[in-house]
Amino acid sequence: MAQKFVYFFGAGQTEGKKEMKNILGGKGANLAEMANLGVPVPPGFTISAEVCDIFYKNNKTYPQEVLDQIDDALKKLEEIMGKKLGDSNDPLLVSVRSGAAVSMPGMMDTVLNLGLNDESVKGLAEKTNNPRFAMDSYRRFLQMFGNVVLGIEHSKFEDILEEVKSTKGVEYDTELNEEDLKEVVEKYKALIKEETGEDFPQNPREQLQKAIDAVFGSWNNPRAIAYRKIHNIKGLLGTAVNVQSMVFGNMGDNSGTGVAFTRNPSTGEKGIYGEFLMNAQGEDVVAGIRTPMPIEKLKEKLPEVYEKFVEIAEKLEKHYKDMQDMEFTIQEGELYFLQTRTGKRTAKAALKIAVDMVEEGLITKEEAILRIEPEQLNQLLHPTLDSVAKQNSDVLAKGLPASPGAAVGEVVFDAETAKQWAEEGKDVILVRLETSPEDIEGMNVAKGILTVRGGMTSHAAVVARGMGKCCVAGCGDITIDYESREFRVGENVVREGEFITLDGSTGEVYLGKIPVVEPELDDYFKKIMEWSDEVRKLGVRTNADTPKDAEVAVKFGAEGIGLCRTEHMFFEGERIKAVREMILSDTLEGRKKALEKLLPYQKQDFIGLFKVMGEKPVTIRLLDPPLHEFLPHEEEEIQEIAQEMNISVEKLKEKINELKEFNPMLGHRGCRLGITYPEITEMQARAIFEAAKETGAIPEIMIPLVGNVKELQNQKQVIGNIAKELGVENYKIGTMIEVPRGAITADEIAKEADFFSFGTNDLTQMTCGFSRDDAGKFLTEYVELGIYENDPFKVLDQDGVGQLMRLAVEKGRAVKENLKLGICGEHGGEPSSIEFCHKIGLDYVSCSPYRVPIARLAAAQAVLRNS
Amino acid sequence: MAQKFVYFFGAGQTEGKKEMKNILGGKGANLAEMANLGVPVPPGFTISAEVCDIFYKNNKTYPQEVLDQIDDALKKLEEIMGKKLGDSNDPLLVSVRSGAAVSMPGMMDTVLNLGLNDESVKGLAEKTNNPRFAMDSYRRFLQMFGNVVLGIEHSKFEDILEEVKSTKGVEYDTELNEEDLKEVVEKYKALIKEETGEDFPQNPREQLQKAIDAVFGSWNNPRAIAYRKIHNIKGLLGTAVNVQSMVFGNMGDNSGTGVAFTRNPSTGEKGIYGEFLMNAQGEDVVAGIRTPMPIEKLKEKLPEVYEKFVEIAEKLEKHYKDMQDMEFTIQEGELYFLQTRTGKRTAKAALKIAVDMVEEGLITKEEAILRIEPEQLNQLLHPTLDSVAKQNSDVLAKGLPASPGAAVGEVVFDAETAKQWAEEGKDVILVRLETSPEDIEGMNVAKGILTVRGGMTSHAAVVARGMGKCCVAGCGDITIDYESREFRVGENVVREGEFITLDGSTGEVYLGKIPVVEPELDDYFKKIMEWSDEVRKLGVRTNADTPKDAEVAVKFGAEGIGLCRTEHMFFEGERIKAVREMILSDTLEGRKKALEKLLPYQKQDFIGLFKVMGEKPVTIRLLDPPLHEFLPHEEEEIQEIAQEMNISVEKLKEKINELKEFNPMLGHRGCRLGITYPEITEMQARAIFEAAKETGAIPEIMIPLVGNVKELQNQKQVIGNIAKELGVENYKIGTMIEVPRGAITADEIAKEADFFSFGTNDLTQMTCGFSRDDAGKFLTEYVELGIYENDPFKVLDQDGVGQLMRLAVEKGRAVKENLKLGICGEHGGEPSSIEFCHKIGLDYVSCSPYRVPIARLAAAQAVLRNS
Repeated sequence: MAQKFVYFFGAGQTEGKKEMKNILGGKGANLAEMANLGVPVPPGFTISAEVCDIFYKNNKTYPQEVLDQIDDALKKLEEIMGKKLGDSNDPLLVSVRSGAAVSMPGMMDTVLNLGLNDESVKGLAEKTNNPRFAMDSYRRFLQMFGNVVLGIEHSKFEDILEEVKSTKGVEYDTELNEEDLKEVVEKYKALIKEETGEDFPQNPREQLQKAIDAVFGSWNNPRAIAYRKIHNIKGLLGTAVNVQSMVFGNMGDNSGTGVAFTRNPSTGEKGIYGEFLMNAQGEDVVAGIRTPMPIEKLKEKLPEVYEKFVEIAEKLEKHYKDMQDMEFTIQEGELYFLQTRTGKRTAKAALKIAVDMVEEGLITKEEAILRIEPEQLNQLLHPTLDSVAKQNSDVLAKGLPASPGAAVGEVVFDAETAKQWAEEGKDVILVRLETSPEDIEGMNVAKGILTVRGGMTSHAAVVARGMGKCCVAGCGDITIDYESREFRVGENVVREGEFITLDGSTGEVYLGKIPVVEPELDDYFKKIMEWSDEVRKLGVRTNADTPKDAEVAVKFGAEGIGLCRTEHMFFEGERIKAVREMILSDTLEGRKKALEKLLPYQKQDFIGLFKVMGEKPVTIRLLDPPLHEFLPHEEEEIQEIAQEMNISVEKLKEKINELKEFNPMLGHRGCRLGITYPEITEMQARAIFEAAKETGAIPEIMIPLVGNVKELQNQKQVIGNIAKELGVENYKIGTMIEVPRGAITADEIAKEADFFSFGTNDLTQMTCGFSRDDAGKFLTEYVELGIYENDPFKVLDQDGVGQLMRLAVEKGRAVKENLKLGICGEHGGEPSSIEFCHKIGLDYVSCSPYRVPIARLAAAQAVLRNS
Repeated sequence: MAQKFVYFFGAGQTEGKKEMKNILGGKGANLAEMANLGVPVPPGFTISAEVCDIFYKNNKTYPQEVLDQIDDALKKLEEIMGKKLGDSNDPLLVSVRSGAAVSMPGMMDTVLNLGLNDESVKGLAEKTNNPRFAMDSYRRFLQMFGNVVLGIEHSKFEDILEEVKSTKGVEYDTELNEEDLKEVVEKYKALIKEETGEDFPQNPREQLQKAIDAVFGSWNNPRAIAYRKIHNIKGLLGTAVNVQSMVFGNMGDNSGTGVAFTRNPSTGEKGIYGEFLMNAQGEDVVAGIRTPMPIEKLKEKLPEVYEKFVEIAEKLEKHYKDMQDMEFTIQEGELYFLQTRTGKRTAKAALKIAVDMVEEGLITKEEAILRIEPEQLNQLLHPTLDSVAKQNSDVLAKGLPASPGAAVGEVVFDAETAKQWAEEGKDVILVRLETSPEDIEGMNVAKGILTVRGGMTSHAAVVARGMGKCCVAGCGDITIDYESREFRVGENVVREGEFITLDGSTGEVYLGKIPVVEPELDDYFKKIMEWSDEVRKLGVRTNADTPKDAEVAVKFGAEGIGLCRTEHMFFEGERIKAVREMILSDTLEGRKKALEKLLPYQKQDFIGLFKVMGEKPVTIRLLDPPLHEFLPHEEEEIQEIAQEMNISVEKLKEKINELKEFNPMLGHRGCRLGITYPEITEMQARAIFEAAKETGAIPEIMIPLVGNVKELQNQKQVIGNIAKELGVENYKIGTMIEVPRGAITADEIAKEADFFSFGTNDLTQMTCGFSRDDAGKFLTEYVELGIYENDPFKVLDQDGVGQLMRLAVEKGRAVKENLKLGICGEHGGEPSSIEFCHKIGLDYVSCSPYRVPIARLAAAQAVLRNS
């Protein structure tokens, strides 16, 4: 038997079902499914998405069998409907719609009222007893066909319509009578002849074929390609085409059309929610000339129809076991469902619906967990911009959505001003070319951060996410002039002190203030988290450097600190002076003296953290960044600091120059610092142990950038000596696995380590050879070209970096069965990466505080998807 | 039975043998072996190196059994010699010498004439009938014991001696008579009492024990530790101690002492070669008061002794099957051998000796191959400084021996001047802070290169080695002042135009000119190469970018080009302008136009290479470095080039800034360039294919920095299109494996690749996380601390990087059995790395032209060591 390309639906002759989404598309599969359920669906047929693939591979032509199957289906449709396409008595009219396996709303083309021509328009007039309606339908069809199928600009049709209206002295289309519309039709046909050199095709089969071609052709229109790129839609065959008999909602007062949900998509509230228009077609709703009515009103207008609608809607929800988004048309009192699909919903609604459905016995807890898109929780955890106010504001510039949330504040251009203004009680937005660790305090007091350079994993982005603070990074649209204290976007100049608003979830920057809506965590959220915790096997820790961050994380359910970066503690207030004194000292004694000044601060930091975390584990990573990060880089700052440090500008510059590195990522940092300057490790170990003694905590000390077991041995020795001196016995020492060599020699390293924590940010950089600060230049293109499916800094590169992780897990566990394994890179908060961590058997993930709930949910989903 | 710590030798009672070097040390094992062979050796005993280990582990004390075994051995020695230590009639005197498994000449302590005291000195006088000799021996012993064992400064003894000489009005020691010497002895004893608070120990057993302690103690004196560090001597237990009965070469005219080799260690000429002094002790030779005579003279003086010496020497050489370095003493006509060991020799001698010994039937060809230290060949392949002239010159500064050879020339500070002066026929040395690709032409015309920054694998070092040009890198001693055209080393100022001399094999920099000796390759060299070629399995290719380099390499035996770096071709003359034009262009058309200008140059480059290489394979790597390397960086240059390019300085600076990268190593380079700018790949492919068509060559095109098979697919497509266009079918496409991800996913990549070439420079950087330009700051310390045994940029890190290579080989071959595998990093010319490449089954190594012979030899040794 030949391959089946065309699937009939409706009238008890349905050939498809909902599981055939891949070839029938979402719309086609659901039409078939509804027909199977006995839901009234206007009959029609779906041309498989496989034909789309063949169409493109075949130089935009079809094999004969496809054409034959379309003919057969059309014949069947005509028989069932008792009407014929183009018939001058009672013509069959059809819609031709796209429908891919993944919904791409509005991206592809649709043709309605197909089958009308100079003859059949008369039949329609007669049959409906409404000549004006028939002519208007013809007019609409010509316009749609002319635009969509023949590629004539929409405005040319509009111009004709306007011209006729103005000649007739009327304002609205509805005021045109049959004759007027006939004039429009004639002018439309003339336009088509003029533009295409050919007459408008009167043959309905030709109309149909051309419409099908156009819909398949629209799969690769620029809009559709862009949409798929933006939404990361890949691996589809193409779109299917649905040819369906038309029903009309504009055939009088017992006709209408509408859209409804089985539950409220914003709040999740149970019950039919939607709107409709009497005596209207779908496009009238969109046109916005008439305001639709809430669906409840239908009960008054057509109580029987409403009752039937509710009954079917509930049936559909029960059948699909999820909230449905439905389109319907009432033609002369007869209800038709044109579409049903799982409805999109807000995070808030998603949680409520999932929990409610469990309580209704519709789905299991496990299904409920799987229903929530983890990333969507972000909406609930961060402030958001008031959606109405936002829609009425113009976007000033757009950068990367580096850290979600919303922020309103006055523009400042440096950390110092940020601090001063914040102390004065002002809300500030820190705007920088890029941030460096020196800006930490400024970032901390700012409501939001906006940078010109840097990607999703730039310093600004990483730190902001850690702080749960809104950040728009890499906003190349703007040009900062630090000197004149202003930034420009095109013609706009924004001066220091002016208000701007950031949307960290979209990367948009607005001029002025937009109201911000604060997040709230309801019982549904808590319930889903509770269920997730019951299911998941991975522990969820947090990356937190301050008691404040730690508190937020614990509130969100963090079970420990997986990464406390001690370097952030080096920047605050007086400390940075001591740090610089240490760096600038040429002698061991000098360095030790400076480090002694830091010791009490560090100790207090750790006491603070240990107190917040109580019995929960706290993993502290020793100093990681290269020392030059602590020195100033701009001329003015250098002068200032030289004076402050009481040394010559030359001496300071010399040191800065001496510490300069070609590739700081691969330079003198991580444990390399602790090995060449053991006094730094000694100070940090002392601070940790003294704090542990005061609080009773059992610290986990983590050595960064280990690539060779001997590095770990060296630092263990240094730390062990301090522990012995202070009489501390209860502590753990582990290592970051972030250098490929560390993963490769994990068996050796495991012998000396109590735990591993995969630092997948650096591991990705070194394994793929991508500097995350520079990769923007080619990585976007790489993702577009499909070389990497995703940005490997956002989504773990399972085939490359992941293989190294897997190797390290195997090697490490082979040597030490109970080796504790975690991840503390950015990927520790990304759902698909979390699933991978679960699969390779890690013990926990650690992520920024605001991603802890996401990780809890994703970890539970990982269990459910892999059992 | 208790563990044996003391081994007797001599008088038919020898307990050791040459295979016991590990515990007896080289000297002890060879003394035992000689005794076993019937060679006259003064009897004695060796205290095992294991005792040294115990000594240190035991807080510098011995277990009783060690002391007991020493007592027993001493008793046996006294019995055999018929003399007693400290006897007032005929005392036994002994020497106490160090001797580790690896020779450390002069680094540890020695005590001679032990056993003398106020009583036995009389016995010695009587027995030798030479009271002055006896008293002088006593005097010498006191001095040596006082210095070595008791730690009294040598000069204090010398002062006393000078004082007595001056009182007596004599000039030389030899003019002092017995009484004078007795006065010296008394004063020495008083000095010892004064310095140590104790009398000089008259008890000979106590003397012996203290001397043994001192020798063991000297194992860890700073000199010895430094020596081991410098010579990378590791893993030894410690030193053994040899206690041996004294023989005296200064007992009259039928006594003497000397040193001789069985062959000439400079030339390899067969026959006894050495020198001796009649009536003298070893130290007299060192003192340099009397000039030793050539060994042949001994034939005249003591023909029988000479004859016996020659006979034994030949016996020893035959026994050890290698050239021997022997120490001997003649006591009153009686010949004694004090030491024999395999003699050190020049590369030239090593080759001749090895080849001669094969012809003499003494060793096999395979043994001959294993006899040559591959690195030693460097001596023969590069010019060297005249050794005498060098010894008479003062070292001005010392850097890293970055590229071997010697160079004399006038100092210049920039590439431009270098070119001008070279055109004027001057020899120049290019002195730079560091070099960049812009300096290539200057480097090319310079005789040698001196840089202040950068390590063994810095740009300067790598390029210089490729060019076979002498280079001293990372010479931090000097400070360059570009503006005043001079550099400083301490007080010395060297101006542009002054002559300096570089020794690239030691890193030394000399002021002025030192004569240079040109290399010559003799028949012995050729023979060893020929034998090596018969044995080795690895192919040996070369890294060469120019026809000139390729010619040199072919002369040295290269079988192909394993790496032609095309970027070097971008810098010469007019080309750089076109390259910059391309980079500065914002449009595809602009870039294509600029690339069209480059095409004919590139084509000619490849024609040149293909012609030199004939049938031999040529692997061409497409453009690798980030584009900013082609733009100027210094203000002056920027201005100049902006003018030249006819663009504004601002525009140029903007572009430079735009291309700036935080970590260029991990940035927009390698195939990432060819993917984002396919027009570059197209131009290069076109140049290669057009050149191939003209010459009939079958090019191998290599894609750099591949970490993902899709990168390779992308570039293959681009290249394939050009090939199709030009009708070229015969070519290969392969990839560098230099990104860890490339190794990890080698199975995927192999599906698309005809060959892999391991780029171990970058692979080391990314696997270990070391930037080779920055690692100097900690890597030296890492090697000192033993974290890495060697600098992983010099010697392949087999445990880390090597494991990734092994993985890639396995994965690659699993998919494609006949996948061609090579290496083209610096390690391709390093013997131990070559052995590793052999073991993991690579097909070839590729190294700089001047290392080709080293690679050929090392590849042969790899076979012999692993079969």
